[in-house]
Amino acid sequence: MQFKLAFIGFGVVGQGLTEILLEKKDMLAEKYNFHWTVVAVSDIMKGSVYDKNGLDMKKILSLVKEGKKLEEYPTGIKGMNSLATIKETNADTIIEVTFTDVKTGEPALTHIKVALSAGKNVVSTNKGPVVKQSVELLKLAEENNAHYGFEGVVMAGTPVLNLAKYTLAGNKITGFKGILNGTTNYILTRMEDGMSYDDALQKAQELGYAEADPTGDVEGLDALGKVVILSNVVLGKNLGWKDVERKGITEITIDDVKKAKAEGKRWKLIGSAEVQPDGSVKAKVWPEKLPLSDPLAGVCEAINALTFNTDELGPVTIVGPGAGRRETGFSLLVDLLNINQEMSG
Amino acid sequence: MQFKLAFIGFGVVGQGLTEILLEKKDMLAEKYNFHWTVVAVSDIMKGSVYDKNGLDMKKILSLVKEGKKLEEYPTGIKGMNSLATIKETNADTIIEVTFTDVKTGEPALTHIKVALSAGKNVVSTNKGPVVKQSVELLKLAEENNAHYGFEGVVMAGTPVLNLAKYTLAGNKITGFKGILNGTTNYILTRMEDGMSYDDALQKAQELGYAEADPTGDVEGLDALGKVVILSNVVLGKNLGWKDVERKGITEITIDDVKKAKAEGKRWKLIGSAEVQPDGSVKAKVWPEKLPLSDPLAGVCEAINALTFNTDELGPVTIVGPGAGRRETGFSLLVDLLNINQEMSG
Repeated sequence: MQFKLAFIGFGVVGQGLTEILLEKKDMLAEKYNFHWTVVAVSDIMKGSVYDKNGLDMKKILSLVKEGKKLEEYPTGIKGMNSLATIKETNADTIIEVTFTDVKTGEPALTHIKVALSAGKNVVSTNKGPVVKQSVELLKLAEENNAHYGFEGVVMAGTPVLNLAKYTLAGNKITGFKGILNGTTNYILTRMEDGMSYDDALQKAQELGYAEADPTGDVEGLDALGKVVILSNVVLGKNLGWKDVERKGITEITIDDVKKAKAEGKRWKLIGSAEVQPDGSVKAKVWPEKLPLSDPLAGVCEAINALTFNTDELGPVTIVGPGAGRRETGFSLLVDLLNINQEMSG
Repeated sequence: MQFKLAFIGFGVVGQGLTEILLEKKDMLAEKYNFHWTVVAVSDIMKGSVYDKNGLDMKKILSLVKEGKKLEEYPTGIKGMNSLATIKETNADTIIEVTFTDVKTGEPALTHIKVALSAGKNVVSTNKGPVVKQSVELLKLAEENNAHYGFEGVVMAGTPVLNLAKYTLAGNKITGFKGILNGTTNYILTRMEDGMSYDDALQKAQELGYAEADPTGDVEGLDALGKVVILSNVVLGKNLGWKDVERKGITEITIDDVKKAKAEGKRWKLIGSAEVQPDGSVKAKVWPEKLPLSDPLAGVCEAINALTFNTDELGPVTIVGPGAGRRETGFSLLVDLLNINQEMSG
């Protein structure tokens, strides 16, 4: 299939995807019959350019890397804002990668609704809209015969949603538990090496894993958003932010970690949900002391992992990266290839 | 899509699949638009029955469980052998689950060739044909516009081939390493608990993990077959049995295991292959001492696991069951659902 793409937002994730699309153009065409042109890029800081016949994305990447505005691109229509780009261009698929407030979900939420309502596919790495309205947005996509892909919101490019939907097809998934935040897993790994919580946090900040205000990670809020998403998308529930019990890792001491080690166990911050006999779901983010025989116990550093409980296979676990510029960009390609497969049929 | 199925062989795996198909009939129809009828069952011991309008599989299961011959089924044509069943019935998809010699691949190899040549899809859990001729058989399938699925030959129902082909789409897979034999992993786990090799092997035999002659497992031959399959199917090579270096676990002593434990490591029998810069592949089955930070180190008991090395995501690991009657039966459903998706397009 031929895709006409428009980038809404063009930060590191969008640039990461662009590099992959350029490097793999021939392979994607030959192996998956996936053909693409980018017709528009609109970024609130970097400017905007549209050419219905397609942009030279190598040139666009160069401009951005030199810190120049997209208006310096030699041809095309300049200055269209995000909504105009979504509505008025010939793009059939919107790549929504704006800086978005994870609490309100804006401006991504509006972008996604407008695009889906116009029958355009959306792929996006923005968590906010999926946490808040995955059920509604997937319904909106279906009503408009469009697709909404958001593989990157849980484990970046490690395709856990794809795994649940396609690879584990035929199973009933009754619950999951996972290491869904790389920063806290990195901190716990350093503490097991003997570092204090404070030193480990500082090290995580130096490496760029943790932000200056680490609350979102260490208090389990980031993992909580992912538990909400997985509960709604994979288990078919409709949980909100407040339906998940939560405790972070700030109270775990080096003594706790040593004691666990002596018992042959390891502390991990686990996000989990389990469908109950009455159909409700019990979801939480909580530190757990896992035996070393648990596949999640061996997952160290900033790596993520997720175990699905299935009726036919029992627990099935996937382990992979949970962050990274290029890995997150790649998640958008996972979504695009899924849409390509669903639509080529 | 509507499938007309014929079972060639009807042992525990075929019965396991039948149970799943019966239990999940409505779900498979609603969720995947997958509809099925079994028109024939032909088993060298249990007999044979064919009805072009479909058999009552609950009745067939009852007969088999009571130790009766399929000839006691009230209607239909009796006595067709496997080749006649493949060629002369109206089945469009053959479920090949005979007892087959893993070295010669027969009789499965002939069954599969005849079916594919007639343009019929084949799903099979028989390793022999895939080890010997996966490249040729997949080509034969393509030439005849048919599908050949064999998800179950590597990790039973844990869909590793599916993961590589669909879920990791867009990546270049450059190698893999995995725990591909449950029996040896069970033995090594018991040895870590303090049991001697001989006692652990005996325990594995008591539990039915290891056969009376355990050579195939403990000398790494079973894992070797899977390395050949993964090298050819996932890495696109054409290895034979002799292209893989091999060493089993029989020389590992309880002292070796204790020493590794003291170093924070664990012995695992690892099957691996890595594409070299010149395009050749270096493949082996060899005991390795893994650090506990390796996701494979945490995989204990009879569980299997496989790490794919990818260009975009680095290592991605899947952990799940590698054996079991129902799990292996389920692998055939994974294949059938894939064919359903590829053909509904």
